[in-house]
Amino acid sequence: MTKTALTSLSADQLAERLTDLRADYTWLKEQELKLDLTRGKPGADQLDLSEALLRLPTGHSNRTGTDVRNYGGLEGLPEMREIFADLLGIDPGQVVAGGNSSLSMMYQVVTWMLLKGGPDSPRPWSQEETVKFVCPVPGYDRHFTMLAELGIEMVTVDMHADGPDVAQVKALVADDPSVKGMWIVPTYANPTGAVCSTEVAAELMAMPTAAPDFRILWDNAYAVHHLTDQETKSADALGLAAVSGNPNRPIMFASTSKITFAGAGVAALAASAENKAWYLQRLNFAAIGPDKVNQLRHVEFFGDADGVRAHMQKHRALIAPKFAAVDQALSSRLTGLDIATWSKPTGGYFVDLDVLDGTASRVVELAKEAGIALTPAGSAFPHGNDPRDRNIRLAPTFPTLAEVETAMAGVAVCVELAAVEKLASS
Amino acid sequence: MTKTALTSLSADQLAERLTDLRADYTWLKEQELKLDLTRGKPGADQLDLSEALLRLPTGHSNRTGTDVRNYGGLEGLPEMREIFADLLGIDPGQVVAGGNSSLSMMYQVVTWMLLKGGPDSPRPWSQEETVKFVCPVPGYDRHFTMLAELGIEMVTVDMHADGPDVAQVKALVADDPSVKGMWIVPTYANPTGAVCSTEVAAELMAMPTAAPDFRILWDNAYAVHHLTDQETKSADALGLAAVSGNPNRPIMFASTSKITFAGAGVAALAASAENKAWYLQRLNFAAIGPDKVNQLRHVEFFGDADGVRAHMQKHRALIAPKFAAVDQALSSRLTGLDIATWSKPTGGYFVDLDVLDGTASRVVELAKEAGIALTPAGSAFPHGNDPRDRNIRLAPTFPTLAEVETAMAGVAVCVELAAVEKLASS
Repeated sequence: MTKTALTSLSADQLAERLTDLRADYTWLKEQELKLDLTRGKPGADQLDLSEALLRLPTGHSNRTGTDVRNYGGLEGLPEMREIFADLLGIDPGQVVAGGNSSLSMMYQVVTWMLLKGGPDSPRPWSQEETVKFVCPVPGYDRHFTMLAELGIEMVTVDMHADGPDVAQVKALVADDPSVKGMWIVPTYANPTGAVCSTEVAAELMAMPTAAPDFRILWDNAYAVHHLTDQETKSADALGLAAVSGNPNRPIMFASTSKITFAGAGVAALAASAENKAWYLQRLNFAAIGPDKVNQLRHVEFFGDADGVRAHMQKHRALIAPKFAAVDQALSSRLTGLDIATWSKPTGGYFVDLDVLDGTASRVVELAKEAGIALTPAGSAFPHGNDPRDRNIRLAPTFPTLAEVETAMAGVAVCVELAAVEKLASS
Repeated sequence: MTKTALTSLSADQLAERLTDLRADYTWLKEQELKLDLTRGKPGADQLDLSEALLRLPTGHSNRTGTDVRNYGGLEGLPEMREIFADLLGIDPGQVVAGGNSSLSMMYQVVTWMLLKGGPDSPRPWSQEETVKFVCPVPGYDRHFTMLAELGIEMVTVDMHADGPDVAQVKALVADDPSVKGMWIVPTYANPTGAVCSTEVAAELMAMPTAAPDFRILWDNAYAVHHLTDQETKSADALGLAAVSGNPNRPIMFASTSKITFAGAGVAALAASAENKAWYLQRLNFAAIGPDKVNQLRHVEFFGDADGVRAHMQKHRALIAPKFAAVDQALSSRLTGLDIATWSKPTGGYFVDLDVLDGTASRVVELAKEAGIALTPAGSAFPHGNDPRDRNIRLAPTFPTLAEVETAMAGVAVCVELAAVEKLASS
């Protein structure tokens, strides 16, 4: 049965619908739920997949005879760098395998551009009057809060299914030398699930920029986090940049946080030879070396990149049903009502939900009162400001499947109730 | 038999001595040694003491039920913070347990003072015309290279057996608001082995400073690294600062790098409530949380602070003979010659050797040609500049005892040869 779009209902019909929905919502609150869809965290069953890590490594030397229990080795174990290189489709020589956090490596790059400038900077960014970053929206909240903390202005562009809006980006970077950088989550983007196409990536790597030291922070957090058989291959950012004559433009990041243990995995950075040397030179003043025991632990656990790929199949088996449950719950109540659209991601950690303009905050509020925690409305936008107040990021991996089903049925009620409240009052 | 001071020898006697020493040195080179006394690294036998860590943790939740395999917990596991607090004589509430590197935590503090300023800063340090640090010398080379990298000027004061020269420090900080901070390794200092007394610490924490945001970076890397039964207790920097009305002055650092695995241990920062909140607020933009699996691994391994203390006894048993061998080798050749003095540390990782003025570089060069790698002369001074060219840092923990004996006998030859070369040519 096709439902009627809520926008075509009469005032009386809306009032009647509102009464029904309020009853549904009252019932929902009576369930006294305590569910959390806020953060992209692996579920306990996913973490269990890597339990063998806790008994590794079996030895304490790597293949080159380095005692991983002692100091040194700033760029990480070669075996670990090879695994990342294979997964990211790049050369091991371009990779630095680091500590437990790719976010920290991104933060290092931005602060070092501020304090020292890059190899191609006229001066450190902190000596510029203004520094701006292009931010595709919706995007990853921690990217934006990092920039805000560091005093970097954010200008937004639209995120499409194939990546950032290239025309908008080009217009921003062409003439303004204060636009120094840009964020991209190229594969299964947070939160939209978009995959940056090779065409879009090629244009971004080749486009003229007024700033000679323009950086694209290519946060490939979900490179191997497929949810379907269609295993998307990430665009070759480093290769495209090199052939375009802009080898230093992209800096790539990845980690095993959502592959093994979140916060106890291994992170990586990859870049041009010049950028990598620059990064290691700075790092040498800040650290003696990464946790190589944990790197060897991961190397023994996976064996090689194919070991990672096989492991990701197990994650998919656990979480794909949760994503299906989100779609099912939203579809069964909202399809045809013309008040919401949502992503059907083929990878990554999020479902991106757009509700009726001006109602996202209300949906989050209603859900909260019913015991369902959602990421604050607007958090996928710089300074938390969603100009249309319509975007909500859903993170279904951490709760159990049953919890996702219950929570999402509740969210769907809240989405419809907020829409009818608004339509009935206007 | 008491030897004759070389300085009292006649020209002929010196020439004769030079001939003998050149023969000794030729013999030394023929041994084709390949020994390294450069870095304060634990020996493989010390690392073996912690081998059980590789099979830990047995569980994956801490006592409060946190799944250590997942994200979060920026200030670290409470159990880990309690162990550090007990060892450092402070309150667990003052401690942040972090990643694998206390050096990285120091670097964060300095960069955040530059980029953001502290809770008591008139403005970020990067907006000051000049920022200076007081550097006791000889000191830790990585402290100095970090400041140089970040554009901070260094002014030196003398390091005595009971800590930095307080009168010199007071004179530097009293009227010059650009003097923003100071390094101290308070316990078994790198490289002199000095222990900062409570009296000196009290004066440093209480002294008037022109800068309202003056920081003492209290790098207590060797707090529990005793070499004798006389187990020195570190001065209570945080307590002394608080009673002096300067609670935000000290920031304390420590790590298990030279307790368990170097580079795969757990680091900690401790500070006033205001400083700690400031640190965590900044950290929140740069990281999601430390490696809690590794923290739980350490908590299970030690049990409590007494477990750490018992573990340090095992280290002492392994390395105290190496320190004795250094002293023995230097004494047997050099005592009475009046060309060298050296420390007899009661803890820590180094022996501090002062040779005849103007010969340290030559000693290092001679040793290198004989296959004995020493830390570059001057490395314990800002910009590597030892004004008297006399200081050499010896790090005897990494080689075996036999290697230390061989290497140090060779170093003693080089020290005497360089001295005689100089005296004979003047």
